[in-house]
Amino acid sequence: MEAAVARETDRPGSEAMPTNRADRAPVLLVECEDRSGLVHAITGVLLRHGANVVGNQEFVDPGARRFFMRTEFVGVGDPGAVGREVASLLPPGAKVRLTRPEPKRIVVLATREHHCLADLLVRHSFGEMNARIAGVASNHEALAPFVRRFDVPFAHFPTDGMSREEHESRVADWIDSLAPDYVVLAKYMRVLGPAFVARYPSRILNIHHSFLPAFAGARPYHQAFARGVKVIGATAHFVTDELDAGPIIVQQVVPVDHTRSAEALARAGRDVEQFALAQALRLVLEDRVFLCGNRTVIFD
Amino acid sequence: MEAAVARETDRPGSEAMPTNRADRAPVLLVECEDRSGLVHAITGVLLRHGANVVGNQEFVDPGARRFFMRTEFVGVGDPGAVGREVASLLPPGAKVRLTRPEPKRIVVLATREHHCLADLLVRHSFGEMNARIAGVASNHEALAPFVRRFDVPFAHFPTDGMSREEHESRVADWIDSLAPDYVVLAKYMRVLGPAFVARYPSRILNIHHSFLPAFAGARPYHQAFARGVKVIGATAHFVTDELDAGPIIVQQVVPVDHTRSAEALARAGRDVEQFALAQALRLVLEDRVFLCGNRTVIFD
Amino acid sequence: MEAAVARETDRPGSEAMPTNRADRAPVLLVECEDRSGLVHAITGVLLRHGANVVGNQEFVDPGARRFFMRTEFVGVGDPGAVGREVASLLPPGAKVRLTRPEPKRIVVLATREHHCLADLLVRHSFGEMNARIAGVASNHEALAPFVRRFDVPFAHFPTDGMSREEHESRVADWIDSLAPDYVVLAKYMRVLGPAFVARYPSRILNIHHSFLPAFAGARPYHQAFARGVKVIGATAHFVTDELDAGPIIVQQVVPVDHTRSAEALARAGRDVEQFALAQALRLVLEDRVFLCGNRTVIFD
Amino acid sequence: MEAAVARETDRPGSEAMPTNRADRAPVLLVECEDRSGLVHAITGVLLRHGANVVGNQEFVDPGARRFFMRTEFVGVGDPGAVGREVASLLPPGAKVRLTRPEPKRIVVLATREHHCLADLLVRHSFGEMNARIAGVASNHEALAPFVRRFDVPFAHFPTDGMSREEHESRVADWIDSLAPDYVVLAKYMRVLGPAFVARYPSRILNIHHSFLPAFAGARPYHQAFARGVKVIGATAHFVTDELDAGPIIVQQVVPVDHTRSAEALARAGRDVEQFALAQALRLVLEDRVFLCGNRTVIFD
Repeated sequence: MEAAVARETDRPGSEAMPTNRADRAPVLLVECEDRSGLVHAITGVLLRHGANVVGNQEFVDPGARRFFMRTEFVGVGDPGAVGREVASLLPPGAKVRLTRPEPKRIVVLATREHHCLADLLVRHSFGEMNARIAGVASNHEALAPFVRRFDVPFAHFPTDGMSREEHESRVADWIDSLAPDYVVLAKYMRVLGPAFVARYPSRILNIHHSFLPAFAGARPYHQAFARGVKVIGATAHFVTDELDAGPIIVQQVVPVDHTRSAEALARAGRDVEQFALAQALRLVLEDRVFLCGNRTVIFD
Repeated sequence: MEAAVARETDRPGSEAMPTNRADRAPVLLVECEDRSGLVHAITGVLLRHGANVVGNQEFVDPGARRFFMRTEFVGVGDPGAVGREVASLLPPGAKVRLTRPEPKRIVVLATREHHCLADLLVRHSFGEMNARIAGVASNHEALAPFVRRFDVPFAHFPTDGMSREEHESRVADWIDSLAPDYVVLAKYMRVLGPAFVARYPSRILNIHHSFLPAFAGARPYHQAFARGVKVIGATAHFVTDELDAGPIIVQQVVPVDHTRSAEALARAGRDVEQFALAQALRLVLEDRVFLCGNRTVIFD
Repeated sequence: MEAAVARETDRPGSEAMPTNRADRAPVLLVECEDRSGLVHAITGVLLRHGANVVGNQEFVDPGARRFFMRTEFVGVGDPGAVGREVASLLPPGAKVRLTRPEPKRIVVLATREHHCLADLLVRHSFGEMNARIAGVASNHEALAPFVRRFDVPFAHFPTDGMSREEHESRVADWIDSLAPDYVVLAKYMRVLGPAFVARYPSRILNIHHSFLPAFAGARPYHQAFARGVKVIGATAHFVTDELDAGPIIVQQVVPVDHTRSAEALARAGRDVEQFALAQALRLVLEDRVFLCGNRTVIFD
Repeated sequence: MEAAVARETDRPGSEAMPTNRADRAPVLLVECEDRSGLVHAITGVLLRHGANVVGNQEFVDPGARRFFMRTEFVGVGDPGAVGREVASLLPPGAKVRLTRPEPKRIVVLATREHHCLADLLVRHSFGEMNARIAGVASNHEALAPFVRRFDVPFAHFPTDGMSREEHESRVADWIDSLAPDYVVLAKYMRVLGPAFVARYPSRILNIHHSFLPAFAGARPYHQAFARGVKVIGATAHFVTDELDAGPIIVQQVVPVDHTRSAEALARAGRDVEQFALAQALRLVLEDRVFLCGNRTVIFD
């Protein structure tokens, strides 16, 4: 009876999918110098192991002469054997990885702005990310009550009377105690020093509130206003030694016009910041991002 | 000393604006049959009252021959007098409103999906919306713990063994007890009956997970997949008697390709659903949306 | 001396590439029922023939259980042998094609609007399309002088006192005399009958001036205006028996607001119509489009 | 009879509007220091002259404290009198203009790339622009035959053995002989010297093939490739003394991924270059663009 009523009036909106994808298929990630026959050799290994390939993408960067391949497969009892066998067939220097089935671990650094952090906490609390947020840290306390609503540990690292090196060293010790795979800068408004960056090579993601390389550095929305641009944007990228110059993962833009003040640009940009960071993080956590020099190869 | 250190390393990201805009300027909203001299007459009233106009937009719909105007002004002791005087100069049937300075009140209805609701709760908890969320109701209990994290009342209205009319009547009584300005359907997956809709004319906002009028009704992402479209989208609109046919406020789209299953389309669509609803709600709460027949006139 | 001067002041804008790509690599196109080992088998053939694969993409449609693959390769004396050998390894019913190196042939039908047609003529005259335009026909004479500027034959097929069948039969005879690979409807404002459509299965491309399936049929911009949408668009698709319901190749959209009349929507839509058609035609002419039921699989 | 047949089968696509809009309404353009009562004063003049206002937009730049207004009106015998009367009421230094009803005149400079130029020639030949193209000049002869197809004069100004100043002086003499309102650089690949720029203040439009201020200067697509951006774009702007730093009119972007070489980026960017330039030119030719320092105020 109840079901009948429900069927009559319910919008069958149950297109929503189970968001916590616990049983991830193993993913084989290959990266090496390009040469003939790589796809044939790798698919041969998968075939011999009886793998059922559910997704496969490959790319050759012609300039770098490098080969990249990402293969999701099921039906193999010992995926590790696939990885070892593939590695044995590849040129020297090849990188072969098999992803773990369990979620990755991340820590998030923020300052005072909440929107990117809040978006990650919401996705996390509904199991939408292939990751556990092991903790959130900030150089301010403003976000502490909000983070705690989500039962995620919050750490406050004030900068008072401290050198940058000392501050970063404390933050890094905290990070290391949590053993994350990635460090996510969700509008962390401090420039990181080289020692900190070197500690997490290609493992720090940042969201910069401009369309890089335009408006690197401080106050990009004010720069954008002054330049009179008609589009603003956000860039999610890996952090390297050079400020705002690391490999770009996702960029998103939004059109604007002369009626927007610098503050209104900042407001308009928040949604794309949040979206770009979330999307970049998803790509990274699903092992879809390869590095090729300072460029990214992304299999989505 | 400390400041010096901070200055050295801090990214001056303080572009973030105070998000709780308590001291909103009064807004004069005028809507009437078009005729010559309206702008001159209305600006004359504002001028005589010594108003400092900080934003002004007008539009004439040539087909409907209707005039719309939205004016933000400051510096007037008795804004109500401006409204009354303007009204006295306009053609019969004119609508003149002056917005209240205090935040509006909304209630939110949801079912099981969290993303649109969560986005509103986050914006609300940081004072980003010109509104108080007076309560959240759902035909399921799944979202209760999440809503309560935000100290917002949650009401559960199961549909068990109840006719649609009876269910809606209970929900409406709850709504009325909270006296909201608007009812927001944040992925509320039930089709509303005519009595319910009639109770809140032009006061119910819905987010539909397609680019209307394409894929109205049930399971739009499955419809979109079957049709093989290359773009999907979301539509925020006012609810009227006809399903998914009310005046459109915001539409957003995202490109897709053949690799996306219906479930992947649904996943990709969630972000635009959430942004379209938030943006539409912002426009409505800031009194930027007029109705002209089944079309909206939006001053943003 | 001259070179020195040029170097000093020239913007090195010579990023422009040679647009007439005469020496296209052969492309192997495979489509069959999915089963294990297809990629391994096909790459094995390519490897044995010493092919240098310069681009490779594959896709399995999980619902249809169909496998699609597109491989560009060089360095093989007899590409046809590759195709035959691949075919011999595939399941029954497989389709294997090797593209011709020479440009394809197209004819274009138009009515009175010039923009889509002009765009194709310009691209054609600079060798940007992998095709020769064998002729342009119209049910009106308005575009004749323009077409002739480009040294492309123009045929006028008036509809006066003629049944649709008779008219279409004359047009089809003309088309057949030119032996095109594809028939391109560049804002051809007549609904084609089933006999005509059946004569060119999956070989007629149309540009429809709406975001299908919204606003199929006549006067889509007027429909869009009446519905009050906030985005308009254009859809390039293959023509099938059902009006505006064939497989979609490209869709593009442009945001609009309440200030646009139906005529202004039409004007704003022309650019996306033209770009969507040009892009769809490029994809088809470069053999990047597969059909999977009423959906397209596109390797770009 | 014929009409009946046509009605049966014709898609009523006659949404196409008459493109040659000869009878343009006069447009009043006002720009001055902001102060109270400007809109009231100006609309008062229009009202006294019995003007029927068909479009009106105003904007105050709060930083610059400048007022901008654009009013289309009909029904006034002597529009010039409106302009003079408005001017008499405004603060000192105000600029008041009334547009001419006749089309403006432009000249176009190009180098070897055809797409932006071709787009303008096509629009011109169908009367879609509010302008006459008085002539096209290039430092190369490659485009001459194409331009002549459109019955537009072509001038070749080789740079051989000439200093930049001498070359530009010859080009400028030719331009001046044609007395254009605007000079349009349609992928003109030479950096213009200060004397040339100073001769046409705020009257030279350029299309730059990047999303400025990113990738100013030479070979922006190669810069974009090297930086690994995920979006490319084009910027139409006024030319000033500083290279690629003038006021921006239109910017458009297109998403890209790692599979695109620098050449492929250039190819993908051509459509947005062409579209951005055409749109910027339309805005300028319809007197919709004001300058406010190095920013543009655009009433569209």
